[in-house]
Formats: sequence, C-alpha cells, structure tokens
Amino acid sequence: MFVLLNLKAYPCEAVEIATVAADVADDTGVRIAIAPQTAEIAPVAETGVETWAQHVSGIEHGSHTGSTLAEATVRAGASGTLLNHSERRLRLADIDAGIRAAKRAGLETVVCANNPRQVAAVASLQPDAVAVEPPELIGTGTPVSKADPEIVTDSVDAAGEDVPVLCGAGISTGEDVTAAADLGAEGVLLASGVAKADDPRAALEALVEPL
Amino acid sequence: MFVLLNLKAYPCEAVEIATVAADVADDTGVRIAIAPQTAEIAPVAETGVETWAQHVSGIEHGSHTGSTLAEATVRAGASGTLLNHSERRLRLADIDAGIRAAKRAGLETVVCANNPRQVAAVASLQPDAVAVEPPELIGTGTPVSKADPEIVTDSVDAAGEDVPVLCGAGISTGEDVTAAADLGAEGVLLASGVAKADDPRAALEALVEPL
Amino acid sequence: MFVLLNLKAYPCEAVEIATVAADVADDTGVRIAIAPQTAEIAPVAETGVETWAQHVSGIEHGSHTGSTLAEATVRAGASGTLLNHSERRLRLADIDAGIRAAKRAGLETVVCANNPRQVAAVASLQPDAVAVEPPELIGTGTPVSKADPEIVTDSVDAAGEDVPVLCGAGISTGEDVTAAADLGAEGVLLASGVAKADDPRAALEALVEPL
Amino acid sequence: MFVLLNLKAYPCEAVEIATVAADVADDTGVRIAIAPQTAEIAPVAETGVETWAQHVSGIEHGSHTGSTLAEATVRAGASGTLLNHSERRLRLADIDAGIRAAKRAGLETVVCANNPRQVAAVASLQPDAVAVEPPELIGTGTPVSKADPEIVTDSVDAAGEDVPVLCGAGISTGEDVTAAADLGAEGVLLASGVAKADDPRAALEALVEPL
Repeated sequence: MFVLLNLKAYPCEAVEIATVAADVADDTGVRIAIAPQTAEIAPVAETGVETWAQHVSGIEHGSHTGSTLAEATVRAGASGTLLNHSERRLRLADIDAGIRAAKRAGLETVVCANNPRQVAAVASLQPDAVAVEPPELIGTGTPVSKADPEIVTDSVDAAGEDVPVLCGAGISTGEDVTAAADLGAEGVLLASGVAKADDPRAALEALVEPL
Repeated sequence: MFVLLNLKAYPCEAVEIATVAADVADDTGVRIAIAPQTAEIAPVAETGVETWAQHVSGIEHGSHTGSTLAEATVRAGASGTLLNHSERRLRLADIDAGIRAAKRAGLETVVCANNPRQVAAVASLQPDAVAVEPPELIGTGTPVSKADPEIVTDSVDAAGEDVPVLCGAGISTGEDVTAAADLGAEGVLLASGVAKADDPRAALEALVEPL
Repeated sequence: MFVLLNLKAYPCEAVEIATVAADVADDTGVRIAIAPQTAEIAPVAETGVETWAQHVSGIEHGSHTGSTLAEATVRAGASGTLLNHSERRLRLADIDAGIRAAKRAGLETVVCANNPRQVAAVASLQPDAVAVEPPELIGTGTPVSKADPEIVTDSVDAAGEDVPVLCGAGISTGEDVTAAADLGAEGVLLASGVAKADDPRAALEALVEPL
Repeated sequence: MFVLLNLKAYPCEAVEIATVAADVADDTGVRIAIAPQTAEIAPVAETGVETWAQHVSGIEHGSHTGSTLAEATVRAGASGTLLNHSERRLRLADIDAGIRAAKRAGLETVVCANNPRQVAAVASLQPDAVAVEPPELIGTGTPVSKADPEIVTDSVDAAGEDVPVLCGAGISTGEDVTAAADLGAEGVLLASGVAKADDPRAALEALVEPL
C-alpha cells in the first residue's frame, strides 16, 4: 500500500511531519510520501522523505506567471504530484496537459476523481494512478470504505487493470487502510488524520501498523 | 526606483540570476527583487536577494489543496508577492482576499492591472503598489513609456497619492527605466529582458546604470 | 428606489412573476426589473416588464462558444445586466470588459461587490450602479441594513457621488427597502423573498408599498 | 450524418440561418441542428429547426446567478447541448455534472474533446456523442480529416461502440463531410463555414449534398 499524506494548507510543521514520515517508512518498509505546500517542497525533500507536489500546471517553460512548472518542483525535490484534487478541480484539457507536463519532468501522477465514472475518465488519460474521493466525505473521518464500499470496488473496475486506485476521504485508522486494501485499493490518500494529529508519529504508525 | 524581476516559467537558472541581482543591488544601492517559481523561493532567498512570490492565494490555513498559502512563501523566504498578473488574472474578490492574505503574512503586494481604469480599481483595494502592464505589450520589447506614455501618467493619476505605480511590459533598457521614472513610475516590472539575456549581469547593470 | 428582482435558477414561473411585476410597477410607479435565465429573457420581456440579464460576457462578436454576447440579450429584450454576482464572480479584467460590452450594446449595468472596498474598486470601472451584497447574508432573510448598516453607508461613500448603490442580500420586506433607502441606497437587489413566495404579487406589493 | 451548426457569437442572423437550415433539413432528410446564443434559443426554435444550446451549467434549480439551467433551455425550445467546447472548456467534474443536468432535463449531449485520449475520457462519462476538435484547426478551413485523419479514426476507436463521434474543426465543404463519414464519424460540428457564408443556404446545401 502507498500512503500519500496531503498537508494541504494546514498550520502544521511540514518538516517535522516529513521527518516522522521518513522514519516510519524506514522502520516499516511501507511507502509513504508527503505533499506539502509548493514553497516547502525543498525543505521537506531534504528530510529524505518521498515528496510530492499538490498540483502542477499543464504548461511548458515560457511566459507563465503564478503557475507551477513541473520541472521546478522536480528541482526542489518532488518525485510525484497530485492533480485535480476536489479542492483544486481542473478542466479536462488541463488534467491531460498536467499529466503530460508531469511525465515530461519525471513526476509520478495521482489524479483525483469524485466517483467511478470520473475515475474511468481520468484513467483514460494515462496517469500513474487515480484516487477516488467522494467530496462529501472529505474531512469527515468517515472512510469511503465504510460509507460506501461500492464506490471503491466500482472505481477499481473503472480504472482498469493498468491503473492502480488510491482511496481517499475520511481515512484515519489502520483499520480504514486495511479495509481499503481489501476492496482493491493499492494506496490511500490521507490529510487531516495525520496532519492535524497531536502526535503525528503515533497517528502514522497506527495507520501503517496493519500493513 | 524598485526593479522587480519576474522569472515566470522561463528555462533560466534562478539561483544564478538571484546571485547576480543580489550583487548588483549591493553595488548600486538600487532595490532589486526576484520573483521565481514558488518551488524555488527558498534557494533564491538563500542568495540574500529580496525574493517575491509570483502569486499567493486568498486563503487562510485550512483544507486547500494546490493553493499557495502566503505564510508558506514567507517561511521559504519571500517578502512580497505579485497578484493578478495578466498571465494569472484573478477574480476581484480574490485580489481583495489575496491582498488581505499577504498583509496577514507580512508580504508586500504589487497588484497588476491592464489599464488606468483597472489601476484605480486595484488601488481601492489598498495594495502596497500597482503595476500597469498593457497586455498587448508584454514580451514585445516595446516599453509602454514609448508605445503609449499616457497610460503611465494616467495610471499614476488613477492610483492616487498613496499607491505607487510600477511600469511593466516591454522594459529592457536603462533608457526605458528612466523614461518610466520621468512619467511618475516608482518602479519597473521586468521579465524576459533580463531572465532570457545571455549575460544577465550585463543586462541588469545596463538597466539600473542610469539610476 | 429601483427594485431589481433576480430569479436565479429558481424553479419559478418566470413569465408569471414578470407579469405581476409589470402590473405592480404600473400601479405604483416604482421601477421594477426582472432578471430571468438568459434563455427566458425573450418571453419575460414580452410581458412588458423591464428585463435584465444575470450576466453578460466581456466579449465582442466572434468565435466564442457558450458565452453570453451582450447584443444577443438586447435582441431578446434585455435593457440591463448584473455583473460579478457573488454566485458568478468575475476576474477584474472581465468585469471591466463586461461593462464595456454592456455599454456597447446599450445595456445598463449593476455590478455586485462584497464589501465597501470592492464597491470602490468596482465604481472605478464606471458601471451605472453597484450593488453591495455581503456573501454571508445572501438567502438568509436578514437584511444588511439590520445586520450591519455601516456596510451600506460605507458603500455609498465608497461608490462616490456619481455611482448609485443598490443594497442586496436578505431584503424581503417593505421595511427592509425603506431602511436601505434611509442608509443612502437608491435601489435593492432581491431574489428568494419574491421569487420563492407563495404569492409573488402580495410579496412584491408589500415590498414596494412604503415607497 | 448529423450536422450541428454552432453559431458561436458570430454577427449573423440566427433566425434567418435557422429558417434556411429547417428548409434544407426538410428537403434533404439530413438531420441539421442549430446552436445559437442562449438568449436566441426561443426565436430559433420557433422556426422549427432542431435547436441546441452551446453550453449548460452542471447545476440544479436553486441559488445560481448567471448560470445556464438546462431546464430553462428546454423551456425555450432546445433539445440538445454542446459541452466542453474548446472555447468553453470545463472542469472534469463539471462535464460530468453538465451531462447529468442535461439528461435530467431531457437534452441530448455532444461533449467536445481535443484529442483521442480526451475522447476516451469524455466517453466514460456517458454522453450521447463526442466531438473531436483539435484546437489548432478551429476556424482554419483545414478539416481534421485532411490535416490528420488518424485523429478521427483513433477517436472513433477511443469512444467505443456505444458513443458516436462527430468531427469538428475546419469542416466547410461536402467533401469534408464525406471524408469525415468515411473515417467513421457519424456527424460534423460546423461553425464559420456556414454562419459566416454570404449565402448560408448555398453553403449548407453544398455541405449536405453528398449525403
């Protein structure tokens, strides 16, 4: 299972969480990556943790102000990027362009989608993986694996054999991670469960413990 | 005069240009700032040059994925931000929110506008400065001070006494900078003239030489 | 006082409400306009009521698909348009372009803003009027004149002498309209109070009765 | 073959072209539909021609200002809608919501896409048809069937058996229509070729003549 921890714009200590995540990944052998603010990719990557961008723009080098050039995130230390998170929904053509930009720069991609129909759509654009996150469950603490397990199994079907599915929204315990795996997910997309925890190490260890 | 150099998504060596800019600023006493990719704010700021963001989002800490939190750019070393560049035009309410976010985080703001009417509008939102950049001149090498000097003087009038005006679009020589100053501008917004120059040091020195 | 009734995408009988509004306007001499769905401008205008668009695009004739050309709304019978409603916030440059497009086509403009600062900004773009609508009050039934009367008086100051201010958000009774007038507003922007009323005629008559 | 004529924001006489199209459709038995400005759906539909919207919003009835409610276009006489035209690109989630809104209101859907990859993505969202329009060919007069016929055949493959493909961009002659049909397209999306013709009847008759 791949554990991708999205720090969003939370008031958290990104470098501290990254250090913890690097430790837990080392100790357990579980693949864990951290997606901090773009401005903090460099210090997060310096901890040795696998570092992801939360978004890259579907642009090439050129006259683009205020965009996130995939190559710049790579130079800062990123090795992957989320795209089309429900808090940063993109136009279809820009998801396509963003995946192309990420591939060009050498970034792995996880593209988010709200439902199995959109998972199928996104999988057609050839990302490395998709993440299914029903918007109504984000930040609730109720995992999709409990609220509506068919969304996960239908998404695994919709993505097809070549595109792994991550399960997002409401994942906060090791049991949630196991449930996601049982439904066919090959990873989880986490956020507040760890980023807002009083003890991120304990939260993260509890999450990966069953793996 | 304030010289604000926007590196956009150009295929340039941001740290190298930043080092040059820090030197030229030291040698000449001219205020020079560099606005790199968000992911490169940290290494650029480490050169000692004044470092700006190209954009920040009008958000507070919280559940926002793929946004640029003002505080994160400050932690990386930024002390100011562009907003509403013509390559990243914002909704009016988001310019307002972006200025509030920047003030909260301690970032200086330069808000871009296309014409004197929009300069007046933007000045009402109480930024630290506005930059007037007729979109049709961006990247042309023809400075607005030559193409249509009234746009600059009208913008200075429109901004009012409390809001300084920077002059953008097509500035590439020391003569252009002097012309902008003569029309009442208190700074210039540069991009390709230096960022794409074969010898950025020579280009920057030539620009600030008359000051 | 100008009463501008925004029918939004409510499940209402636009033509019936328009007929009522035309009658009430005739009977009372109060200026009342109706802003229906763009597709229903023509049948609403045929009732004789003053008809407004809810939005027009800042475009000229040309290759633009899915935009709302100002001239097309005029041909259908519109004589004015809202712009930048908080449910359709626009980029600053597009508010400017939208006002230009409306003037070109002969449409009156009311541009919405969230607070006095944005009212000042919008007034700089020379619309025919501005409407101040604090987003947190929209649809609440609590009028801004009660919740925070200073927002109205500050907006009247911010708009300047030449640009009249309409008061929106939460207006539903004649008392609310009178209170808005007392604070310096020259009109009101209404929506659910009339559009969702069981008896739109009674609701509208009660609203304009004190005028 | 289905001939769908997008009038965009062209300075054309929509009702006149609609009358011509209704005649030509009657005379030839070819299915022809007209997509005018939303404000002109009603008068265009009154000519008896099949009438389409250029766009509908992915909303339900409610507090939405400046959106295009699918039901309002149906009341005005529309029976179908374009979605995601390259001049009105939508977020993936909004294409999904737009198709749902159209189905709910009884509108047929043709969703545009730039390339075969996006055609596959869009087809996953279960529209009635997709239209492939390489953005670089729009308005050029060079049909995709000539410039790059593989884009059409690949799109037909990508759409799958259940979703017919329309061919857009650069179609202006009967030969272009025949070429599109030979490549597997079941319709064409037209714009300037007819809308800007001096003699729209002659242009349209020439187009459908080989069918």
